[in-house]
Amino acid sequence: ITDFCAGGCCGRQTVREQHGKDESVHRCRPPDVVVFPRCVEEVSALAKLCHRHQLPIIPFGTGTGLEGGVGAVKGGVCFSLRNMDQILDLHPEDFDVTVEPGVTRKALNSYLRETGLWFPVDPGADASLCGMAATSASGTNAVRYGTMRENVMNLEVVLADGSVIHTAGRNRRPRKTAAGYNLTNLFVGSEGTLGIITKTTLRLYGVPEEMVSAVCSFSSVQAAVDSTVQILQAGVPIARIEFLDEVMIDACNKFSSLSYPVSPTLFLEFHGSERSLEEQVNTTEDITQSNGGSDFQWARDAETRNRLWKARHDAWYAALAMRPGCKAYATDVCVPLSRLPHIIVETKEDLIESRLTGHIVGHVGDGNFHCLMVMDPSDQDELHRVHLFSQRLARRALAMDGTCTGEHGVGLGKRSLLCEEVGPSVIRVMQSLKDAIDPNNLMNPGKILL
Amino acid sequence: ITDFCAGGCCGRQTVREQHGKDESVHRCRPPDVVVFPRCVEEVSALAKLCHRHQLPIIPFGTGTGLEGGVGAVKGGVCFSLRNMDQILDLHPEDFDVTVEPGVTRKALNSYLRETGLWFPVDPGADASLCGMAATSASGTNAVRYGTMRENVMNLEVVLADGSVIHTAGRNRRPRKTAAGYNLTNLFVGSEGTLGIITKTTLRLYGVPEEMVSAVCSFSSVQAAVDSTVQILQAGVPIARIEFLDEVMIDACNKFSSLSYPVSPTLFLEFHGSERSLEEQVNTTEDITQSNGGSDFQWARDAETRNRLWKARHDAWYAALAMRPGCKAYATDVCVPLSRLPHIIVETKEDLIESRLTGHIVGHVGDGNFHCLMVMDPSDQDELHRVHLFSQRLARRALAMDGTCTGEHGVGLGKRSLLCEEVGPSVIRVMQSLKDAIDPNNLMNPGKILL
Repeated sequence: ITDFCAGGCCGRQTVREQHGKDESVHRCRPPDVVVFPRCVEEVSALAKLCHRHQLPIIPFGTGTGLEGGVGAVKGGVCFSLRNMDQILDLHPEDFDVTVEPGVTRKALNSYLRETGLWFPVDPGADASLCGMAATSASGTNAVRYGTMRENVMNLEVVLADGSVIHTAGRNRRPRKTAAGYNLTNLFVGSEGTLGIITKTTLRLYGVPEEMVSAVCSFSSVQAAVDSTVQILQAGVPIARIEFLDEVMIDACNKFSSLSYPVSPTLFLEFHGSERSLEEQVNTTEDITQSNGGSDFQWARDAETRNRLWKARHDAWYAALAMRPGCKAYATDVCVPLSRLPHIIVETKEDLIESRLTGHIVGHVGDGNFHCLMVMDPSDQDELHRVHLFSQRLARRALAMDGTCTGEHGVGLGKRSLLCEEVGPSVIRVMQSLKDAIDPNNLMNPGKILL
Repeated sequence: ITDFCAGGCCGRQTVREQHGKDESVHRCRPPDVVVFPRCVEEVSALAKLCHRHQLPIIPFGTGTGLEGGVGAVKGGVCFSLRNMDQILDLHPEDFDVTVEPGVTRKALNSYLRETGLWFPVDPGADASLCGMAATSASGTNAVRYGTMRENVMNLEVVLADGSVIHTAGRNRRPRKTAAGYNLTNLFVGSEGTLGIITKTTLRLYGVPEEMVSAVCSFSSVQAAVDSTVQILQAGVPIARIEFLDEVMIDACNKFSSLSYPVSPTLFLEFHGSERSLEEQVNTTEDITQSNGGSDFQWARDAETRNRLWKARHDAWYAALAMRPGCKAYATDVCVPLSRLPHIIVETKEDLIESRLTGHIVGHVGDGNFHCLMVMDPSDQDELHRVHLFSQRLARRALAMDGTCTGEHGVGLGKRSLLCEEVGPSVIRVMQSLKDAIDPNNLMNPGKILL
């Protein structure tokens, strides 16, 4: 239990000890008990026990979520699913696989290495795939391959009363279906508040024949984001297009021993056959150059490419390293593509005015970006400024027809913002669904809905 | 009201007078009243009236559904939404548009003609887009562009009590979101049983630089379907790959004055730049030839291409024309790709054993196919054989990890099969969701759930 009480409920190791009064900075809220079931039957039996004693149930995958989703706000029993780590039912010819909740995305992709297939959804952290389903995760590849919403075909779920369902029916794995209510996509993104996901069936993809990555610098945020929008408008099937502002690239340079120009930057990746890559790259370079972008710095071989994306994924640690002794806090929003330059420019101004160390990095091909702040957790004033800034950022996104969270989810941190985003009548419908499936509010209580 | 009483509730004109005792062949079930609201406020006011008097509400778009979804099995008020036909809020730079429920897919694509954008989901019929959302429609382009599930970003819905919600919040249109329960995809495919869709926000795509279509014949079903699976495995981003068995191609030849060989056939379409097309086509031709397929017969110009796809979309009428005076009935299933050859071969044998005139045509890239039967509606024995055959086909798909419906939906016809597909515990969850959102069972009662 030690590792949970030590703060696993707060997510990444680096934020385990985060404390704060504000909702948006989550403090550790340990459960009363942690159980480690080894199979769905044990999950079901334990859920029945909790149900009988009306104990809250908090599903736990890898704890890499960022909105306090695994905090036991009402105490209760944490179901750590790490011991259920089997990869089941790989059907390479049908492009699907079923995994237990202890299987992470890296473990799956290692397992798939010899098959010519891969699972592309990549939120950065080596999260568990069932946890990624529970939180509707996405990440750098979503612009090409979609999010968990588009890639989960079926879920095995243990409900609060211990009953076991398969959202699309047991063993079902057609590539499309019109059979009844789409329960699968109701449970995807339900953040553990409707049930415990004990299996997920995922759509797989062929490993691209070729991949190349490139880095391109710009003189302004506007030029980088304009390029992104134009690349998508040109129909380039780009696999990754990540924006890093100059603060972020500076941190990445220092942390990962890179030497990219300290200016707004795009990290790009192209997947396809050799010929199709050539065409994608040519079109993209024409566009970036017409926006004053630098020549591409290439990462053609796997090693350089991995180093590039590791640097991108290490953004969190890179940001942290800029202010030793501090803690990091990340928030995300998503807006329609055309609003991106405006919101990023305004957000950077706000960071300066708020005297915050903020790094902007994001999946700009989806209109989604993160603001990654580094702060002194003992500085109550700074914590308060982070909170106010995050609220303003979310409301700025809402004012631009966007959402307060593109991929981190609601958890504890964005429950009020969710109300603002969807309005009271939608909240009532969401509450009625929650009440229908979990009438005693045992499943991860206090998350998503207030 | 005349046109409804004449049988609009049964879908396509050609089946308007279908009658039969079996569940799978739907007879006309007219509502008591038809109303033609002109705006969401009128829909809401009328729904409140129905709510007060506990009258069933049956939403009606174009009536092109195939599973009896608009039949007024308990009488009540049909809401024809044809007078709400405005295209609203086109955002070309964000690739999205919002439409009212009277707007059909062809009307939208005509409207978009000058913008370089299009909406690709194409079920064949010129269905209303909100109706397509309600039934989770898909069709020939789904293999490349997804179904309505992947392409609806937001819905305005009038609930049974007359309240109006926006499933993702009013005006929200980010390309992705993790904000709360995915209500949008709960309403997509709910077949009018949860609310009346009065607006849908759709994802648009850039019109491909080039399109070419081709036809290829094979000596066996297995060879055609093997080619399909291999084309997908090779990562060809094919836009359409449609299978027609020899019975279907014969009917299409006769109906549309074509002269393709009477054997299992693939209709294919490729979208992309000139260079990428060349590569897609070369890979595909290599694969089809290695499976003994004929040389491609090309449809490069728009006119020939349109003629080809019109022939494909006229399959229903072509089948009907083979037995003058008869009626057509279609059913669909979807299975994992690798099971396709087996299920199609078995199904063709079953058709012969059942002494039925059946045509097989399908979106084989998704593992989805239709069996289109032509029968004498006055022949009770033939009707019964159609019913038994359809049940066997669905159960064959279920036994192969598939679904009883890939795109037609459940409606009246497949309620029992849905129970078999998902099991009683999932049906209970679905029923609890229905009860939560429509506690008086006023919305399109008797559909999806028994």
